Amino acid sequence: MKSPSYPVPAVIAEGDASRRPAVGRKECKVAILGFGTVGSSVARILSERRAAGLHLTHIYNRGIERKKVDWLPAEVQWTADINEVLSSDVDVIAELVGGLRPAGDWIRSALKAGKSVVTANKQLIAHHGPELAQLAREMKRHLYFGASVAGGVPVISGLHEGLAGDELFKIYGILNGTCNYILSQIESVGVSFQAALSEAQRLGFAEADPTEDVDGLDARAKLAILSRGALHSNIMPGDITCRSIRPIEAVDFNYARLLGCTIRQISWAQLEEGQLFAAVQPALVGLTSPLASVEGSQNLVMATGKFGGETVFGGHGAGGHPTAVAVVSDIIAIARASEGGASGFAQVRETAASISSDFTTRHYLRFTVMDRPGIIAAIATILSSCGINLDSVLQKPGYSQAALPFVITLEACKASLVEKALQQIAKLDFLVQPCLHLPIVG
Amino acid sequence: MKSPSYPVPAVIAEGDASRRPAVGRKECKVAILGFGTVGSSVARILSERRAAGLHLTHIYNRGIERKKVDWLPAEVQWTADINEVLSSDVDVIAELVGGLRPAGDWIRSALKAGKSVVTANKQLIAHHGPELAQLAREMKRHLYFGASVAGGVPVISGLHEGLAGDELFKIYGILNGTCNYILSQIESVGVSFQAALSEAQRLGFAEADPTEDVDGLDARAKLAILSRGALHSNIMPGDITCRSIRPIEAVDFNYARLLGCTIRQISWAQLEEGQLFAAVQPALVGLTSPLASVEGSQNLVMATGKFGGETVFGGHGAGGHPTAVAVVSDIIAIARASEGGASGFAQVRETAASISSDFTTRHYLRFTVMDRPGIIAAIATILSSCGINLDSVLQKPGYSQAALPFVITLEACKASLVEKALQQIAKLDFLVQPCLHLPIVG
Repeated sequence: MKSPSYPVPAVIAEGDASRRPAVGRKECKVAILGFGTVGSSVARILSERRAAGLHLTHIYNRGIERKKVDWLPAEVQWTADINEVLSSDVDVIAELVGGLRPAGDWIRSALKAGKSVVTANKQLIAHHGPELAQLAREMKRHLYFGASVAGGVPVISGLHEGLAGDELFKIYGILNGTCNYILSQIESVGVSFQAALSEAQRLGFAEADPTEDVDGLDARAKLAILSRGALHSNIMPGDITCRSIRPIEAVDFNYARLLGCTIRQISWAQLEEGQLFAAVQPALVGLTSPLASVEGSQNLVMATGKFGGETVFGGHGAGGHPTAVAVVSDIIAIARASEGGASGFAQVRETAASISSDFTTRHYLRFTVMDRPGIIAAIATILSSCGINLDSVLQKPGYSQAALPFVITLEACKASLVEKALQQIAKLDFLVQPCLHLPIVG
Repeated sequence: MKSPSYPVPAVIAEGDASRRPAVGRKECKVAILGFGTVGSSVARILSERRAAGLHLTHIYNRGIERKKVDWLPAEVQWTADINEVLSSDVDVIAELVGGLRPAGDWIRSALKAGKSVVTANKQLIAHHGPELAQLAREMKRHLYFGASVAGGVPVISGLHEGLAGDELFKIYGILNGTCNYILSQIESVGVSFQAALSEAQRLGFAEADPTEDVDGLDARAKLAILSRGALHSNIMPGDITCRSIRPIEAVDFNYARLLGCTIRQISWAQLEEGQLFAAVQPALVGLTSPLASVEGSQNLVMATGKFGGETVFGGHGAGGHPTAVAVVSDIIAIARASEGGASGFAQVRETAASISSDFTTRHYLRFTVMDRPGIIAAIATILSSCGINLDSVLQKPGYSQAALPFVITLEACKASLVEKALQQIAKLDFLVQPCLHLPIVG
């Protein structure tokens, strides 16, 4: 193992943490607090991505013996003593224990010890984020919390960095996968709220006490974090009105559909003439809105700015791996910031062995033919001889027999295989124009 | 005006540009090269956002007299001499002239002069990005090009930072608004490609020579940039196969619809067993895919990673303001990186005067009543007395008269107004359960 390449102050809280000499490619030592679903996913990603210069050195958890895994390097130190991590030479501590206490105290101690901190702790950031960020500034250390909202969807970095040039005035979206699952179930199966909730609990999508999710408390913590960052509003979760999804019944989806809508739990914050409107509540959403097609545990955030208009961020809002991606992305951001001299997409890590456009997909072939018997048979014979399987043959009525369009779709195969078959097919004399060949995606 | 707070090397290319002392809140001096649509939007945003610490000092354009505007501070220096900018004390140069030359030479000179560079120049970055990024690294300066792909959609920062923790292996999306407009027109109006193109040209959505757009050259430059950054592939635009959208006819949309699909120009790159598949081509896309609902000049990129699954970025892919937002976001990123000590969403700039959940929306009211004559009249009278306008009354057949659900929708008004009316309505004796009140959004 290399010796620490970040100069870590020997005595904590000396206040000189910012005076790092500029050095070359550095290694960044990382500790994980909490080895649950997210913590072990973070460890997994870090162990598979040593190339990124991130080096997992410590894992804290209560009862470590029962937590230890065999797929991490032997040099990773497992400990049940938080002070062992705080007094170590790690550069970044990833707090993944959750809850307000002791997580908040540990983050304070870590910042004071000159560590940067990454956390997925939504309630802690929602309630104590401004105070912790202030401490981080004082210590000239980083506090990143991209994983605290919408899991793997990089909405915090997107709003804070990607849209930094805009003046955002509205954010709204779907921030709670449990509500989304329950509402989708009521909609598609026509069951009651209670039945949908029970099913969600059975599948592990909802807690035994579902209050945090279905009554909006989870989403409002996330909305508070987003509003602070994107709308620069000093808002606390308790300032945000919540309405439960409990009263929604299947009949409401029937009526919503008549109105060209569906129903979703919407988190919404909007600045208007110096006033901040904010609420988490079930709402009707037009079927053509991206919000309407959000499924299961997916999250989606729409941000509207004065200059750039509406921008959408969507993806997996929960789960160990997606949340861990957000945590590791934050660690990488800190490592890069410590390195300096970043330049966009500068470094190409590897070169793909070769470049091809020969995707494997389903295929759409539109033929235009002079109609006569035996056309399908002739085409199918060639396709078959090339090892290609037909999926369907479609012919809409109403076209001239002299230039009749019809469509053949193919099961998934390489585009090159189809092109080879089409070269033979092109010689058939009933074609009145070249076949149109498109891949079918999504 | 404050004196320059970045230490700018007096002699260019001395190589000591990285040794900046850590100072407090700094001002970042910005020059714009090219005062066209994007350049003037950037100037507009910078002039309205002085709070961000960005200070526009120079504007370069040929024939500046005809370009000068009256809404910029008098101290902004207008010049038609590029050397005046290169030898100035600006920290960041935004290259918005486009084209390969002289833009590329100017960027090289700027980096060598110790300036960081932001560019919206897609073709330049696609063809010379790696070389320019290497120069930026050598000079320890930043080269950002978030505006070069998908305009205002922060996909480059999203992939490079927000998803840095993942191992991305697939990106696909809609990167050309002109193709999207033309295909949408063929689909919705049933016109020929040529007619849709002519209409797009008439409206200014397509160039007189539409080759770059409709034959895929524009999108493949963007795909090359994204593939390099997200898939770490050393790919050039010429390596990417392009297929034109010219052969697409209205009949193909009819068949696509039968298959539950629509047709879009899809840019697609995917790493598979060391091989990079890449193409820009028209493709069938399932109607439930987010790609299917992309309209007009909207862009959408879907990135898939080993750990985080699929993430979506969408928004305005073109236009002066959205592109300018991307440029300014990059300038802010450079200014922040130079400051150091960033901590997520740390700084709350302002506090909204007050916080409210009293949004103005359309409203959905679902009543459940013991049926009898006069119910609608009773409710409508109260709503009307509160100044609320009815939009529609919906009643589906098949429910019991003893607990009959029906819906009233309201024109846009404040939620508080509706709640006030509902308090009066709650006293009506035909209600068998409380009214369900939802906002209608989107």
